[in-house]
Amino acid sequence: MSNIAASIITIGDELLIGQTIDTNSAWIAKQLNQQGIDLRRRVAVGDEWQPIINALDDELKEAQLVIITGGLGPTADDITKPLLLHYFGGAMRTDARVLEHVKGIFAKRNRPMLERNLKQAEVPDTCTVLFNRLGTAPGMWFEREGKIVISLPGVPFEMVAIMEDEVLPRLLDRFESDAIIHHTIVTVGEGESFIAEKIQSIEESLPSHIKLAYLPGAGMVKLRLTGKGSDEAALNELIVGYKNKIAEMLKDIVIAMSDMPLERVLFEQFMLKGKSLGLAESCTGGYIAHHLTQVPGSSAYFKGGIVCYQTSIKENVLGVSTDTIMMSGEVSEATAIELAKGAMKVLDVDCALSVTGLLGPATDEDKEPVGTVWMATASMDKVVSRKFVFHYDRIRNKEMAVSMGMLMIYKYISDVN
Amino acid sequence: MSNIAASIITIGDELLIGQTIDTNSAWIAKQLNQQGIDLRRRVAVGDEWQPIINALDDELKEAQLVIITGGLGPTADDITKPLLLHYFGGAMRTDARVLEHVKGIFAKRNRPMLERNLKQAEVPDTCTVLFNRLGTAPGMWFEREGKIVISLPGVPFEMVAIMEDEVLPRLLDRFESDAIIHHTIVTVGEGESFIAEKIQSIEESLPSHIKLAYLPGAGMVKLRLTGKGSDEAALNELIVGYKNKIAEMLKDIVIAMSDMPLERVLFEQFMLKGKSLGLAESCTGGYIAHHLTQVPGSSAYFKGGIVCYQTSIKENVLGVSTDTIMMSGEVSEATAIELAKGAMKVLDVDCALSVTGLLGPATDEDKEPVGTVWMATASMDKVVSRKFVFHYDRIRNKEMAVSMGMLMIYKYISDVN
Repeated sequence: MSNIAASIITIGDELLIGQTIDTNSAWIAKQLNQQGIDLRRRVAVGDEWQPIINALDDELKEAQLVIITGGLGPTADDITKPLLLHYFGGAMRTDARVLEHVKGIFAKRNRPMLERNLKQAEVPDTCTVLFNRLGTAPGMWFEREGKIVISLPGVPFEMVAIMEDEVLPRLLDRFESDAIIHHTIVTVGEGESFIAEKIQSIEESLPSHIKLAYLPGAGMVKLRLTGKGSDEAALNELIVGYKNKIAEMLKDIVIAMSDMPLERVLFEQFMLKGKSLGLAESCTGGYIAHHLTQVPGSSAYFKGGIVCYQTSIKENVLGVSTDTIMMSGEVSEATAIELAKGAMKVLDVDCALSVTGLLGPATDEDKEPVGTVWMATASMDKVVSRKFVFHYDRIRNKEMAVSMGMLMIYKYISDVN
Repeated sequence: MSNIAASIITIGDELLIGQTIDTNSAWIAKQLNQQGIDLRRRVAVGDEWQPIINALDDELKEAQLVIITGGLGPTADDITKPLLLHYFGGAMRTDARVLEHVKGIFAKRNRPMLERNLKQAEVPDTCTVLFNRLGTAPGMWFEREGKIVISLPGVPFEMVAIMEDEVLPRLLDRFESDAIIHHTIVTVGEGESFIAEKIQSIEESLPSHIKLAYLPGAGMVKLRLTGKGSDEAALNELIVGYKNKIAEMLKDIVIAMSDMPLERVLFEQFMLKGKSLGLAESCTGGYIAHHLTQVPGSSAYFKGGIVCYQTSIKENVLGVSTDTIMMSGEVSEATAIELAKGAMKVLDVDCALSVTGLLGPATDEDKEPVGTVWMATASMDKVVSRKFVFHYDRIRNKEMAVSMGMLMIYKYISDVN
């Protein structure tokens, strides 16, 4: 059959007033995409009856599959279940397995069981129950006129568990569809216009069923090739061919041939080259360490770091001299270099990166302007230092410093033979 | 006039295949909300002509204001500008101020200027240009039949700058509207059902124009009261009255009377009580330090931390005895306590939190099960240790450990007189 079109409806006032960032949609989108299901639209609406009904009506006009998240909690602002009962008809029934499960959760947590918790085990008799092993609100699967509506809780890890346990296997069974194949190249150091110019001839020669997208990030641009077709192997071969041609033209700036975050690139490079790494983070406050340790197994190369937020830690733990701080300032090349050398010694690593800067919003008359960040990498045979000036707000300046810090580490490790 | 209804349309295939998480919508939603503008829907569509046209048609039926983000880059996958030219008519013209600005950016970065970069200064002559001081793609403001369509770049910091510089002041000028007021109470340690039961009598007595929402998070529940009305002062007084009543009924579990993250609560408590804090993070890899340092001025109480990812850092930097690690294991109460005491000493702080655990996915036959995390707080007069077992994946286990670690710190500081 031809590809099916899907929509996601997320429910919750918190999405419309900006109290919550919607991470569920992106996760669901990725899963559907991997099964070759075409997500056409994502819609967010508030906790109100009529807008939800309208969204359902609208999306069902063009989509064969609608996934709804949110509004399944035990409190009065949660209206998805009665709404779906109304929409699909039928009567409420208590599901024995869910009831048992809800009781078990409360017994395990040693909490009193309330009437409203028991209600979590009620479902319309017009749906198939999607068991929620991590929570009390079950998912629901409705069908009408060949179209499917799935309701899932908004709590991210519960949604994920139900998708993996119950929804994705059923969708795989149900639909055969065209393959959708993505390939991504990760580049650093050049802007998207520059890249577009370099690979213009290839971009213009792409057949119409293969799309090229530019995804710019901090200091990096990802290039994504996407194709769709019934012959998965042939399609893959075709896309890989274009990918290799593009990578060949951009070879100086390509750091990965698949969609992976920088921390994963670093992990692979350090493992390959058998080096160890340490950090001395002042203004980035542990955020680089956090990124590096997102990769399972990263302890094999990343020994640890010092978050030297106050001056005393820079001096007493990392051995930066009081003179250097007095003469050059905390945000200076000299301090960055002493921090990196200190971290290399204290943490006993092959290479250490240091970061010291002023992210804002406050500034100090005597010091560097807000956004100034000094970084250094130190290893046995080389010290490299670099100054950055970021022009954004505190949060964004921190993110930029993290990306640039990881690129400094990349520069070190890619130079190691 | 009555409140205006708004919609957001975000454009980009990366949103529909789950490659990017949409943070723009939440930010825009918050700003509109603060101006009393009612966001009705958020819609995400791909980089394709007809679906974007359809979304515009649909949203303009009920909204007086539509904000579009994305699709304004210099590469071939960016189609928003030609599409809006088609939709609103007119012809392309080169904007002199934008052109000057684009040239300036390239000169400053010392990059060659390409034909496609010059094109960034072209805009339909049917729009008002919204100047983008941080990037090359200007925003655009169109009007037709009393309705407004605003197009902004998808790069978050550029979008934010244009909203703040150009869009929000114009919207404020244009619309007077009903006030929307939110008040939030932050609670820890009880579930939403328990809370709902406790405050049922108040919830049932709320007038229809005031809504109560439960926003559960890791170990916490936020309660949000929202009201809308023309008399802002009276409305605020009414909501604050309900808020105080609710807080009174929940007083043992309330940690903040406004919507603030835990790191902000900690900052205020430590400042109030004049104590200093340090960290020894193993499995959380610096992520707690990152959270604490998101608050401007946090260096006044947070001195720093040690990310002791490998055993050698635990022993050599923090002084955990090799015996303890051999006998009890790295993930154990004894190691957690020695880490906290070591951090207190090395960092010279009033209180230190340690975190050591196994987040997964890999496990080790001899060790604790995946998800086991030991934490301890150490201060001059007290050591408190606690074991947690999280049942999620690596990323989620880390987030849970961060929340629980910050709650351990909260427990320490709230007990200080």
